Amino acid sequence: MVSRLQYASLVNYKKVNPVKQKALQNFQSTFAGLNQYKIKIVPESIGHTAAVLDFQSTDFMLAFNLEGLGTKSLIADQLAVSKTFSNNKNLLKKFYENLAIDCVASSINDLTAVGAKPLILADMIAFASNDLLNTSFRMDGLLAGFKKAALKYKFAIPCGETPVYPNLLMPHTIDLSAASLGIISPKKNFVSGKKLKKGDKIFGLASSGLHANGLSLARKISERLPKGYLTKLKNGKILAEELLNPSFIYSNLVSKLLDQKIDLHYMNPITGHGWQKIMRPKQNFTYRISNIPDKPLIFDFLQSQGKLSNEEAYKTWNMGLGFVLMAPKKEGKKIERIANREKIKFFELGIVEEGPKQVALEPLNLVFKKLF
Amino acid sequence: MVSRLQYASLVNYKKVNPVKQKALQNFQSTFAGLNQYKIKIVPESIGHTAAVLDFQSTDFMLAFNLEGLGTKSLIADQLAVSKTFSNNKNLLKKFYENLAIDCVASSINDLTAVGAKPLILADMIAFASNDLLNTSFRMDGLLAGFKKAALKYKFAIPCGETPVYPNLLMPHTIDLSAASLGIISPKKNFVSGKKLKKGDKIFGLASSGLHANGLSLARKISERLPKGYLTKLKNGKILAEELLNPSFIYSNLVSKLLDQKIDLHYMNPITGHGWQKIMRPKQNFTYRISNIPDKPLIFDFLQSQGKLSNEEAYKTWNMGLGFVLMAPKKEGKKIERIANREKIKFFELGIVEEGPKQVALEPLNLVFKKLF
Repeated sequence: MVSRLQYASLVNYKKVNPVKQKALQNFQSTFAGLNQYKIKIVPESIGHTAAVLDFQSTDFMLAFNLEGLGTKSLIADQLAVSKTFSNNKNLLKKFYENLAIDCVASSINDLTAVGAKPLILADMIAFASNDLLNTSFRMDGLLAGFKKAALKYKFAIPCGETPVYPNLLMPHTIDLSAASLGIISPKKNFVSGKKLKKGDKIFGLASSGLHANGLSLARKISERLPKGYLTKLKNGKILAEELLNPSFIYSNLVSKLLDQKIDLHYMNPITGHGWQKIMRPKQNFTYRISNIPDKPLIFDFLQSQGKLSNEEAYKTWNMGLGFVLMAPKKEGKKIERIANREKIKFFELGIVEEGPKQVALEPLNLVFKKLF
Repeated sequence: MVSRLQYASLVNYKKVNPVKQKALQNFQSTFAGLNQYKIKIVPESIGHTAAVLDFQSTDFMLAFNLEGLGTKSLIADQLAVSKTFSNNKNLLKKFYENLAIDCVASSINDLTAVGAKPLILADMIAFASNDLLNTSFRMDGLLAGFKKAALKYKFAIPCGETPVYPNLLMPHTIDLSAASLGIISPKKNFVSGKKLKKGDKIFGLASSGLHANGLSLARKISERLPKGYLTKLKNGKILAEELLNPSFIYSNLVSKLLDQKIDLHYMNPITGHGWQKIMRPKQNFTYRISNIPDKPLIFDFLQSQGKLSNEEAYKTWNMGLGFVLMAPKKEGKKIERIANREKIKFFELGIVEEGPKQVALEPLNLVFKKLF
């Protein structure tokens, strides 16, 4: 058992969030630059998962974002130079393939949340040194992962960068990020949370595991174990494999919901801040959660090894919930049917109520009162 | 004097470029995903500075890219923790402001080269640790720089990220990147090099200094000097100030050229690979340069301190040339007039000739035969 860990010492959101707010305010005055083109930034998209551009002359809108994968790749980078694991080229290649999918997911799921279908993505793979370009399991794995995701989720990768950043990245590491552009067509497919109202149901879609958030804490817990990332789990897999399960990408599923004109009132991937993300819509509502998915093995393991309370765990990780959708009750069955067809587990989680902004996780006797 | 430096040992383009090619080929098959939307990636934009999306239903096209600033920020990050300089908050703030402008330039100048006007940009400022978010000269400087560039070049910054990457970035460093989207309107403003023909003139626009390329070498040379970045130059400034001069952004100037219907056949910022970039158009031509701008102070200093030949210097740095334009002879005077109005120095450099793909720098008796 490792000692109790404070996630705040790793990534301090109390410090990060004011900076985000400051940046948003700082840049508001730049929006007027688009008036000359009769294009505007849709105000409801500001601070949401993707910025949305409205062209007055078209019947579609565009969604745009830039996302970094963060520190998840450190797990594979560390194994790639470890004496006990570095010969395991096939598994290493698979890990990098999965990381590319994670990187895509972090950008595309954010487009999906505003009702956009992905069009193009640019990948950035920065390397700490030239020699990393030669490790074929790394480069081949990454390229395979980006391509696999692009083909499955039907977007193009027309450009990208593979720079080398000596002295900026820690030795033996890579840094992955992606920018993407999606189309909202027709314009009324735009989902912002504006239509959210009391009585709406809160639905959920399963995650595949950690996805790309709370990795700093997961790494810390893992690295303190006697066998580290090679620790065997109950399911016979090593910890690294579970940590590096590729993220689910929800765009095909949500595209089908949009095509079938499901009345979606709000969507959000569960990323940083875990279940607190549920109260991200701008209005004040109480989100009453009466059903919580079973804790997947990886979260159960990390939580017990890190001696984390449920509060800490559900505030940091997705705990099996990858994406939330809020919609009128009658849409539940239709969403469930499509989710089943896409082979992603569907949950009925709870209900949107009048009341102060908070997420009440009733089965856990927990209330999250403030977002972040 | 420092010993002769091999840039190849820092960033080995012989290794980087095959990876780029491999990535491009790998992703070609993903383009078909856009057929469902009647959108296509314009083939001439592949491998150019920005990917161009053609919407059959609109009278405009869009240009898109993702660029990293690279290691230039290390200069400021190093000074920010140095005993002799860290109290110089005003100059430090100015350095970070300039770096944000460099980051914008690396993305926006690439849009400009295909004939696009910038619409939106997403900034990514990754920090090695939480405490860096508290250093107000850094954050305030960066936000001021992004905002200043956005207001001057009339694009919006509707989203961005400020993540913390412990253990991925070297201590005390930041990593800057930006993705942007530009509009090509009308579609015939798209400039790809396709119209390039023998007899076209090669024009140039001045750089402000290093911009964002060849920084690994410039840093190496600087760090070997007894006073490092604080070395006084002939103009009375310290080396760091010259190295961190903010890049020129050419989008307002080129927008005016497009508005005045100047017949532009090719454009390119001079970035990595220095003057070799002149032979980037896809066709085979010889680019005969008969006039080379005077060597700016900073390049003269770095070249002599690094004991670099002209070949090495012009293959690595822009040496005073920030952007090339190729166009029929008759357009020269018009371009010059607009450049003068925008207060960016204009050069008539040479001519496009039939012949093998090469750049002949006649005044230096140098021929670059292969791009990269």
